[in-house]
Amino acid sequence: MGEVVRFTKGHGTENDFVVVPALDGERDLSADEVAWLCDRRAGLGGDGVIRVVPTELAADDAVRRLAPQARWFMDYRNADGSLAEMCGNGTRVLAAYLRREGLQTGDEYDIATRAGLRHIRVEGDPFDAGLVATNLGPWRLTDPEAADLKGFDALVHVSGHDPFSAVSLEVGNPHTVAALPEDVDLGALNLLRAPVVKPTPAAGSNVELVRPLGVRHVAMRVHERGVGETRSCGTGAAAAALAVSFWSGDAEPAGDWTVDVPGGRLRVRGLPGHEVELAGPVALVADGTVTLP
Amino acid sequence: MGEVVRFTKGHGTENDFVVVPALDGERDLSADEVAWLCDRRAGLGGDGVIRVVPTELAADDAVRRLAPQARWFMDYRNADGSLAEMCGNGTRVLAAYLRREGLQTGDEYDIATRAGLRHIRVEGDPFDAGLVATNLGPWRLTDPEAADLKGFDALVHVSGHDPFSAVSLEVGNPHTVAALPEDVDLGALNLLRAPVVKPTPAAGSNVELVRPLGVRHVAMRVHERGVGETRSCGTGAAAAALAVSFWSGDAEPAGDWTVDVPGGRLRVRGLPGHEVELAGPVALVADGTVTLP
Repeated sequence: MGEVVRFTKGHGTENDFVVVPALDGERDLSADEVAWLCDRRAGLGGDGVIRVVPTELAADDAVRRLAPQARWFMDYRNADGSLAEMCGNGTRVLAAYLRREGLQTGDEYDIATRAGLRHIRVEGDPFDAGLVATNLGPWRLTDPEAADLKGFDALVHVSGHDPFSAVSLEVGNPHTVAALPEDVDLGALNLLRAPVVKPTPAAGSNVELVRPLGVRHVAMRVHERGVGETRSCGTGAAAAALAVSFWSGDAEPAGDWTVDVPGGRLRVRGLPGHEVELAGPVALVADGTVTLP
Repeated sequence: MGEVVRFTKGHGTENDFVVVPALDGERDLSADEVAWLCDRRAGLGGDGVIRVVPTELAADDAVRRLAPQARWFMDYRNADGSLAEMCGNGTRVLAAYLRREGLQTGDEYDIATRAGLRHIRVEGDPFDAGLVATNLGPWRLTDPEAADLKGFDALVHVSGHDPFSAVSLEVGNPHTVAALPEDVDLGALNLLRAPVVKPTPAAGSNVELVRPLGVRHVAMRVHERGVGETRSCGTGAAAAALAVSFWSGDAEPAGDWTVDVPGGRLRVRGLPGHEVELAGPVALVADGTVTLP
């Protein structure tokens, strides 16, 4: 029998995570252990693992230096076990966990990530219709020079359709956002295969397919590179709002944007300094122990 | 906040289940609650839910009458919340749970299911390389008259290939087993879409694609009706062994068959009276509580 580890499973708009508390700096998880935890059939299942570590005990020097500003470090891993800088919806789920466990009692604080500090704002009771908001950090158009007069710099090819015009942005990670023509049904798109982006981004790209629904309100579906279609993607939702705002002539998004994803509804807000905030519901669904293989 | 329910998550060759103990006949789960428990992102995740109920407290009269023979009733639900008669790998996971909890201490006993009694045999320590075997009950060729001289009664169409010859069997539920020609790579088949069976079975069919590997040893992939490709299917593994045995001229399978599925290795054994037994490894991976929505 393997080692027994405590866990909490939670999700933000159905982007789901295995939270593993390491409140006393308990031993690290290997890449294989993380991949097993995220395996939806052999293990527990999740889009990623969030180890909750006191910042002063982080293994990484650069993270440890954030200890005076942030009590907790979000040690985030992708489902394949690789290290990741951060994850927007994951940050929100971590904040829900810290609130419930009494590890952060205030409504505003910073957490440490491999991408630096991220500011958390809790609005209302996150376990009763409240929201958790997180700063996603700075964003930018990937290549502002490349965009044509209409604001497009790429084409996205989805099986069975003419290519869609798109624009590429960086929101911590690369996104290509495509606007759907009026006559294309967002729900009916076949995203089993990865949409093809031309020109092809060197490091690949997450692809968002977006349909305007009203004033500052869009619906989107997302295909994450290396993963496939997911129910939600926090930075993707931000990218979708930022792209539609850009096409409408606002280089900075004005007001709050509502982004409907298959897993729920997110709010995107432009922050001063070309940063962007993501807010939405969170849920902690299960707690227990898991026996590592 | 919803009700808090205890759970154990386990799997048999990566066919995974949420086990919910109702040892004192605790209240039933609604179809919506079961579907939520099996939701891999919003809930906990599983191919089905196994409620563990004392047989004498079962809601169903026919099940309750099995109480003198079987202490525990496997109240099995599909991932969509619907009632199901039983599930081969699920029965094995339930047996592992009963063993670990000290609820069945012997190596042989019967459990009650909606399909009647099922006999369990534990071989060795199921938590240390041992196996759990379950009788799957009677099996039969769906239409012995329809099979041609080579033993085929159907064609299975998989995208990108000429149709494969197949035979249909009932192993508690309907299966159509197709033999792959030598030049077709089992691992490379595209099963994202359901294989098409002709003539089309009225109630649909689970489809197994089988490649012989050696003496009484086959590899298979399975596409379950209404679900898609899965990592394992107990009755499907039995159907695969029974079909290949039938094609080899043995109406009853002689000896033990080894069936490799994507999630592991199963053993299939013919029992007297045209019944069939499924054996394989089991794992209980996590325990805890889940908060129903």
